[in-house]
Amino acid sequence: MQTIRTVEAAAHVGQPVRLLGWLYNLRQLGGVTFIVLRDGWGTLQAVTESQADLEPLAGLALESVIALEGVIVATPQAPGGVELHQPKVEVITAVTDPPPIPLNKREIKAGLPALLDHAVVANRHPVRQAIFRLSAGAMAGFRKTLTAHHFTEVQTPKLVASATESGANVFELKYFGRPAYLAQSPQFYKQIMVGVFGRVFEVGPVFRAEPHDTTRHANEYVSLDVEFGFIENHFTVMALAREVIAGIMQELAAHYPEELALLGAQLPTILPEIPHIHFAAAQELILKRHGVDVRGEPDLSPQDERWLGEWAQQEHGSDFLFVTGYPMGKRPFYTHPDPANPAYSNSFDLLFRGTELITGGQRLHRYEEYLAALAKANLPVEPFESYLEAFRYGMPPHGGFAIGLERLLMQLLALPNVRLATLFPRDQKRLTP
Amino acid sequence: MQTIRTVEAAAHVGQPVRLLGWLYNLRQLGGVTFIVLRDGWGTLQAVTESQADLEPLAGLALESVIALEGVIVATPQAPGGVELHQPKVEVITAVTDPPPIPLNKREIKAGLPALLDHAVVANRHPVRQAIFRLSAGAMAGFRKTLTAHHFTEVQTPKLVASATESGANVFELKYFGRPAYLAQSPQFYKQIMVGVFGRVFEVGPVFRAEPHDTTRHANEYVSLDVEFGFIENHFTVMALAREVIAGIMQELAAHYPEELALLGAQLPTILPEIPHIHFAAAQELILKRHGVDVRGEPDLSPQDERWLGEWAQQEHGSDFLFVTGYPMGKRPFYTHPDPANPAYSNSFDLLFRGTELITGGQRLHRYEEYLAALAKANLPVEPFESYLEAFRYGMPPHGGFAIGLERLLMQLLALPNVRLATLFPRDQKRLTP
Repeated sequence: MQTIRTVEAAAHVGQPVRLLGWLYNLRQLGGVTFIVLRDGWGTLQAVTESQADLEPLAGLALESVIALEGVIVATPQAPGGVELHQPKVEVITAVTDPPPIPLNKREIKAGLPALLDHAVVANRHPVRQAIFRLSAGAMAGFRKTLTAHHFTEVQTPKLVASATESGANVFELKYFGRPAYLAQSPQFYKQIMVGVFGRVFEVGPVFRAEPHDTTRHANEYVSLDVEFGFIENHFTVMALAREVIAGIMQELAAHYPEELALLGAQLPTILPEIPHIHFAAAQELILKRHGVDVRGEPDLSPQDERWLGEWAQQEHGSDFLFVTGYPMGKRPFYTHPDPANPAYSNSFDLLFRGTELITGGQRLHRYEEYLAALAKANLPVEPFESYLEAFRYGMPPHGGFAIGLERLLMQLLALPNVRLATLFPRDQKRLTP
Repeated sequence: MQTIRTVEAAAHVGQPVRLLGWLYNLRQLGGVTFIVLRDGWGTLQAVTESQADLEPLAGLALESVIALEGVIVATPQAPGGVELHQPKVEVITAVTDPPPIPLNKREIKAGLPALLDHAVVANRHPVRQAIFRLSAGAMAGFRKTLTAHHFTEVQTPKLVASATESGANVFELKYFGRPAYLAQSPQFYKQIMVGVFGRVFEVGPVFRAEPHDTTRHANEYVSLDVEFGFIENHFTVMALAREVIAGIMQELAAHYPEELALLGAQLPTILPEIPHIHFAAAQELILKRHGVDVRGEPDLSPQDERWLGEWAQQEHGSDFLFVTGYPMGKRPFYTHPDPANPAYSNSFDLLFRGTELITGGQRLHRYEEYLAALAKANLPVEPFESYLEAFRYGMPPHGGFAIGLERLLMQLLALPNVRLATLFPRDQKRLTP
């Protein structure tokens, strides 16, 4: 007898099969009992009118691990169009207590703290499964797109010697009798690797010791990083960012239609050219449209971003908007200034439905520019010596960007909190599970 | 004019093209000058007899960033069978000092410390590039094989609340006023995720505060992790490990023949079934073949592993050997014992050419078994409460394994030190670059 996954059932109509999974639901309707099995990919309903078939389940709670054998029957009214008849149940691992979060309701009713406290079990809920399957799909789409563009994947160290990139908000640890720090991003290393491979990407954890507690930040998250050489300016980088986002969405559309449907997700409109607006023009626009004068502010607030997202939707029919030319003052020292107006930078944020999703831009690439930028930022040269070696020995004009994986899922699925797009979130108060 | 990569040159014979990269070499032979450009994928030689063509390069050092324009000409005696004629050189970023490690010699003569000190530049050497392209290929092959087997990729937290997995050798950090630790492996989380997806894999950094200094250990490395449910025992896991290794090698063979040739790599023989030997039998074998009595030792030494690797080669013609059934005493508390002989475990190591490459096995899966195992190991229950929730609410028989990415490359390429397979290694003395 063939062992199949739930999602393969429709291809086995009329055949005897074996399925392995968890007891997801058990319902009696009149004399008929529905036994629903969940595995890592979906659910399948078995039907019986025989009490003898149910005997192995006596006294067991949901989430018991079971094997189900029977015959697949086409049943238009059943979920998925098939069900299992003449079920023979075998208990593999008996569970006696009901799960702390009900897993077999369409919606998860538990509040966020309870959900996160019990994430170990709650992530088995089909809605939670679907979110994290999309997360895997997003990573696959990211890599596929960049591999097609001849990028090379790298894995760079997360333990670093100095808290240098931004100078703040880094976690410090004890490293064989001296301090070390957790990398806030692979920024320096991905730039260095442009000198090796020309075009690189990395998928990995980043660590931010940011003390603020918001619905869209976490202290550890997965960063999808890109960096490449021989660009003209940040517009070259923006064009690639568009391709990458489109590649991710194509991957999800092609391979995850059930997950998207279950989550009620609307795939975004990605125009052939995503509209862009300069930072200064964006502030003018906010004044004009909303009567709020944010000119002179060095950054956009979440409210500003929402307003700009609305404008992009109304004006361009776009879920995405590039804001370019952020003031140099708020950008890190390696940022390339706008040659035409050096108070502004060749940088960008990509807003997705009114929230920042991607930050990127062109970087400095000449050794002397770095020495000058460090001096201007009152930073010492010594901790940057290895990094500077890349520029001393030849770097092309280059740039890149980073996408927060969980942020991407949050925006795509309209989740109210980035923690809901994280398997086991880390924030100021939460280190477990 | 089309901009191409070096490796695309052979497809553009007779065409005018533009290439972007680094000045890799400049040689004069009689009246002929060879300008060699290196990009992220290879090198291409340009040839000229005109001094005027060379003028832009006057006073510049190797590693200057350049654009080369010219016509691709089929030249059987040139490296790669093509060269660029009528070169027009444009300098993009001028370099004035020669690189700290010569990059244009076939072999890297620098010693290991110098090589690692200057890894930022040294990794541009074609031999170094090739190693890390294979590393990217190994990750791709790993993911491709597991995706084909319906595994789901996960990303689990690296910041954890307790130093619990092995109780020692973890890095401690300050986390908002309390201690946190860096995950030594995703072991607990990948097991938990078997309860969600049934079959999972993860590629990510792991952190080991091990104080010993060997040629085959690092304090941070990339772990390729696998875990899956509904296994019979560790032999189910070993069968998958064989598929994964074969998938990685197929990926390298298919897409990286030039890199393998440049590095003189011999792809391993992977028999349809990799031979296996029980731990106790392995110790007997060592006594019989080498007269050394290691019976009673709780683990295999590096010398033992080399001897066993030789035996696998001579006896089975295999580059790989599974050693099964390690004593329970040396394995972590979640290890499943051998039901027939509970002093031994349902675990394995995979030796690759006489060095441990993979560790894996079957895990405990019943809640009560965990409570008993923790009690036996004198470990408190409280720090494991979230982890135990997975087992309390139903886990199938499961197991998995982990491959050290850098170790895999080291063994495949016969490198003398795992640091040579690491972009920017971390050891007791080294936190930079």
